[in-house]
Amino acid sequence: MSESRSKARVLVAGASGFSGALAARLVWGHPRLELAAITSRTEAGKRLDEIYPRHRVPLALSELDLAEADDVDAAIVAYPHGAAAPVVAELRGLGALVVDLSADFRLRELPEYERWYGPHGEPDLLEGVVYGLTELNREAVRTAELVANPGCYPTAALLALAPLAEARLIDGVVVDAKSGVSGAGRGGGDALHFSTVDENFKPYKVDGHRHLPEIVQGLDQLSPPETPSAPDAKRRSRRAVTFVPHLLPLDQGLLASCYVTLARETDEAELRDLYRARYADERFIELVDAPPGVADVRETNFCRIHVALDREGGRAMAFAAIDNLWKGAAGQAVQNLNLMLGLDEGEGLS
Amino acid sequence: MSESRSKARVLVAGASGFSGALAARLVWGHPRLELAAITSRTEAGKRLDEIYPRHRVPLALSELDLAEADDVDAAIVAYPHGAAAPVVAELRGLGALVVDLSADFRLRELPEYERWYGPHGEPDLLEGVVYGLTELNREAVRTAELVANPGCYPTAALLALAPLAEARLIDGVVVDAKSGVSGAGRGGGDALHFSTVDENFKPYKVDGHRHLPEIVQGLDQLSPPETPSAPDAKRRSRRAVTFVPHLLPLDQGLLASCYVTLARETDEAELRDLYRARYADERFIELVDAPPGVADVRETNFCRIHVALDREGGRAMAFAAIDNLWKGAAGQAVQNLNLMLGLDEGEGLS
Amino acid sequence: MSESRSKARVLVAGASGFSGALAARLVWGHPRLELAAITSRTEAGKRLDEIYPRHRVPLALSELDLAEADDVDAAIVAYPHGAAAPVVAELRGLGALVVDLSADFRLRELPEYERWYGPHGEPDLLEGVVYGLTELNREAVRTAELVANPGCYPTAALLALAPLAEARLIDGVVVDAKSGVSGAGRGGGDALHFSTVDENFKPYKVDGHRHLPEIVQGLDQLSPPETPSAPDAKRRSRRAVTFVPHLLPLDQGLLASCYVTLARETDEAELRDLYRARYADERFIELVDAPPGVADVRETNFCRIHVALDREGGRAMAFAAIDNLWKGAAGQAVQNLNLMLGLDEGEGLS
Amino acid sequence: MSESRSKARVLVAGASGFSGALAARLVWGHPRLELAAITSRTEAGKRLDEIYPRHRVPLALSELDLAEADDVDAAIVAYPHGAAAPVVAELRGLGALVVDLSADFRLRELPEYERWYGPHGEPDLLEGVVYGLTELNREAVRTAELVANPGCYPTAALLALAPLAEARLIDGVVVDAKSGVSGAGRGGGDALHFSTVDENFKPYKVDGHRHLPEIVQGLDQLSPPETPSAPDAKRRSRRAVTFVPHLLPLDQGLLASCYVTLARETDEAELRDLYRARYADERFIELVDAPPGVADVRETNFCRIHVALDREGGRAMAFAAIDNLWKGAAGQAVQNLNLMLGLDEGEGLS
Repeated sequence: MSESRSKARVLVAGASGFSGALAARLVWGHPRLELAAITSRTEAGKRLDEIYPRHRVPLALSELDLAEADDVDAAIVAYPHGAAAPVVAELRGLGALVVDLSADFRLRELPEYERWYGPHGEPDLLEGVVYGLTELNREAVRTAELVANPGCYPTAALLALAPLAEARLIDGVVVDAKSGVSGAGRGGGDALHFSTVDENFKPYKVDGHRHLPEIVQGLDQLSPPETPSAPDAKRRSRRAVTFVPHLLPLDQGLLASCYVTLARETDEAELRDLYRARYADERFIELVDAPPGVADVRETNFCRIHVALDREGGRAMAFAAIDNLWKGAAGQAVQNLNLMLGLDEGEGLS
Repeated sequence: MSESRSKARVLVAGASGFSGALAARLVWGHPRLELAAITSRTEAGKRLDEIYPRHRVPLALSELDLAEADDVDAAIVAYPHGAAAPVVAELRGLGALVVDLSADFRLRELPEYERWYGPHGEPDLLEGVVYGLTELNREAVRTAELVANPGCYPTAALLALAPLAEARLIDGVVVDAKSGVSGAGRGGGDALHFSTVDENFKPYKVDGHRHLPEIVQGLDQLSPPETPSAPDAKRRSRRAVTFVPHLLPLDQGLLASCYVTLARETDEAELRDLYRARYADERFIELVDAPPGVADVRETNFCRIHVALDREGGRAMAFAAIDNLWKGAAGQAVQNLNLMLGLDEGEGLS
Repeated sequence: MSESRSKARVLVAGASGFSGALAARLVWGHPRLELAAITSRTEAGKRLDEIYPRHRVPLALSELDLAEADDVDAAIVAYPHGAAAPVVAELRGLGALVVDLSADFRLRELPEYERWYGPHGEPDLLEGVVYGLTELNREAVRTAELVANPGCYPTAALLALAPLAEARLIDGVVVDAKSGVSGAGRGGGDALHFSTVDENFKPYKVDGHRHLPEIVQGLDQLSPPETPSAPDAKRRSRRAVTFVPHLLPLDQGLLASCYVTLARETDEAELRDLYRARYADERFIELVDAPPGVADVRETNFCRIHVALDREGGRAMAFAAIDNLWKGAAGQAVQNLNLMLGLDEGEGLS
Repeated sequence: MSESRSKARVLVAGASGFSGALAARLVWGHPRLELAAITSRTEAGKRLDEIYPRHRVPLALSELDLAEADDVDAAIVAYPHGAAAPVVAELRGLGALVVDLSADFRLRELPEYERWYGPHGEPDLLEGVVYGLTELNREAVRTAELVANPGCYPTAALLALAPLAEARLIDGVVVDAKSGVSGAGRGGGDALHFSTVDENFKPYKVDGHRHLPEIVQGLDQLSPPETPSAPDAKRRSRRAVTFVPHLLPLDQGLLASCYVTLARETDEAELRDLYRARYADERFIELVDAPPGVADVRETNFCRIHVALDREGGRAMAFAAIDNLWKGAAGQAVQNLNLMLGLDEGEGLS
């Protein structure tokens, strides 16, 4: 950021969605950031505090005007996948640091992206991207110019599994995940109508949710196959990952229940030691002795994790609870932005 | 039932709890049953329609008086485990057919019961018990005099897994189950206070829920080990079962998400055929092409099942939704009682 | 209905909305009615049990084709106001008895309709309409050919207030009413998104909800002004009616809390006697000694009423709870249809 | 507070209840206060962050030990009524400033207290008490040594009605109020069990809730009767107040819908001017142009108010939304404590 300013100027593009609006609120209340502008493709002209009274951001949404964006130091982009890439490219062209909340830059390998999402608008940018799961990639985030903010499910699943993955304990894993409705975003029609969701609970996308390749990529990165020459298909079957999301009848909160087929024998003490060692200095990770509830972390950037050994089934179990809009989206975006701007990582997040 | 009466007289013991009260309502509205009495250890004197206005059963709860119970044809006992066994014994002594909603007679092997629940009050009765998962044990139920009504989680899990178990396709399974709050019963103090549960979701009893041995027993029965001489421990490790329940912020509804490590290769078409064949004639089983929501079966005796193959992880997935108080408790109790009394299985359950 | 048929053939037009779908389900399960067809302007082709799994009506929605409707005995029309009138006219032209769930025929006086809803498509039909608040207009309903089914709020408010109105005790009234979300119908966009409604509660339409004139008309009918020559404005100010609806974070249920400025002194005993006398023979009215909860009547056609005297404020208070989709819409429609067809009033409603 | 300390030391007595726990959290996070101790009569020994993970106060509850309390500058007492008075007396005896969350000191006149609550333990303290509805009594609070923190319903009702009362516009009022479940506190048994409250909504205490005399007292204070010699009964009938609370199926949030019979003609412009003038400088009062939802103020100390004229019924309507635990209890307690300690009123409340 320019030396002459005490606060970095931050643009939030796509601030009318749930994640973008929370990002705007967090930047608005941040002691070291200035909210330069908030934009929306569909609701320009409206005030954000009309749409989201709780956030109390008394600013009007505008159309994104890159001509006026050339003095921003950084941007958080909260566009849908596909729509995000070109905007990110333009903002990067203006020199702004960017945290992108979409899926456009999360998958490192272009073919994998195209398999799940279709053609990529800005494939050239992929190379320099840092995957912003802060606790796993902190040093890279510090110097990144473009951070792909992780999906909500991968955030919880990878934080739950990282210590096991790094210890090469995972021979296979089932991630049974459950998210509050805000994770599905605004709109949604009758599928997200109160009367559809209320007193209901169901799995969805059981034939392949787009967060699956992100979880697989994360696990591969945490514990690369020992024989790197092995063909890709083989590698994956060796560490079979099943991921099924479910929709909870609540607003904010996500739980990933992870069941790990172990690569070798272990005991609960070793498991707990692994987690304690891995997360000892992490201010946003809370290791707990009993299973976490999603309410424990609501409206916070914390990820609360419980690990246990299932003696009966012989599996390791790790449960991670986050607020899908905070640690699973806007909170982690600000956490990353803090690092990119050389600020304290937790600034504006308490 | 006595020839001279057109309706069988049924006692519901423990009718002040959620399951017992629903059993009372179902018997009350049943065209072929007469509700002889409803009893409660703690709320005798109160009218049931004061405690449960929705059920509209205009009768008073009384203390259980066996002297007055000698003319009942059958009883549904909804006492807590431990308290149920002696009452069941006395009612059987009077010649009444009994469906017991407690856990006291669900586990076939006494040591297994004692491991999970402590000393058993009426071990001699265990021999003649039929485990009342109706769709799996129908013929035995018809002639049973004492039926142990299954737990809510085992009902959903075993119905979800039976076709795979019978086809010997299960090499290991994770049952990630979620239940509405009514499954935890009345009382419960602050753990079930609205403010604790609302907007929350969490796993519980991750170190071993008492429904686990019931699920294991059911799977063993459905596909006995091929080498029966194998020691018990070995058998179980061969088909490792992990079971974790979670508490949903809703009242009635239970989903079991089952992830099966396959004993051999298969494809989705075979899976679907197995389920169609197994459940073709079952009026209370609904096979569906998309994942079921618990609201789809609320206040019904249906179990709605979806089976799919997870191509990525190589696992079979089966999702079963029930209403924990209906098919998971009182509804199935009446279904069993109908069979025991020679009535149409679905009478009084629509 | 034709003599040769044992069951009256009933068309449900507009069966894809909440009320229409429930009407279809009630007709489908009705022992004396046959569901001839279910139509939808927007979702023809879909099966109703895909949209509403719980209702389990295994029929496909079709476009309304009047050529095929000429053999129906009766129709329930669940179109939005404005769209209903022409369809009602055509069905009446075919000789079908009609219960209309829209507002098109609820207001007796055309100018009042036009003031609140705009131009009326079929004003000539207004004359023969019977306002179908069954308990207040039963005899007229029996012989009616076109019944305007009341709005959900007027149903609760008028049932709560009728005994007081008939006794000329009302000098003014505040109706503070609260409805579950299903009362607002499908669609609704972000206003009915789960995340908007969940953990929220708010008044709406405080500047005049369209159910107000219906409540005023009902009160005027129950206790006409003593000096009929008095100008309309005066009459109304004499019995000032304030009506404010609120949106509850639940699906089905409506409570009207009515606070009456009394025209003369009375006591609680007289109030209770009035209600008991008025509703003694009403099977769907439940007078209760304590305030009713909306859950007490969920998925029933009951209206549960509690009356009390507020000694401190000197007002009479009447609280009425209904299920907005049952007694407040489809349930009462079937209740009316039963009467129009000469059937038992409660048939198909238990 | 002692000059030598930078932070006032504050004791929170009764910190295991909902209000006390939030008070503890607010003091814990307060930049100018130090949480000296947290006490509980029933859960001493437990850590507060075990009972309330969300509050993240890592302290243990202890028994109240007045010997150790002699160096506290102030105390927030969150005991039930009756139990609070003696503790308040002892803390006052030690010289501590006290904000009492109970009802023990809210009613100015002893007979009125005794009528609603029974004998008073410390009647001598009543004289010096300041009723801590901050916006109405700010100057008195600044110099108070004992503040009676208002009840949640009176807070909303009186803030909604104050401008009308001060303008002598109120000839009678109906306060139809609705609160989330946290307002009923912990415990509560089956009445607050999730399954009782979920999908339900009902009035309660319609025969006289204890917050009624507090509302009446507040209105009398805001606009004293013009002829002070008039007998009490008469005064009250002149300004008849009806107050009925209802229980909402949500956790935190309270709405008071107030319907005022006007003492003279007015119009909406005058009403709005009155509110704008009265609350122009109030940072915690938000006047809004549309009806407020309780979610708009959740987990804040704001009171959001909408006033309107009901042209049809001729009444003024004022709707006030608060968070019952914040502005309705612990938030306002800290607001008062800030004033008593000479701090900025909003410190620690954002």
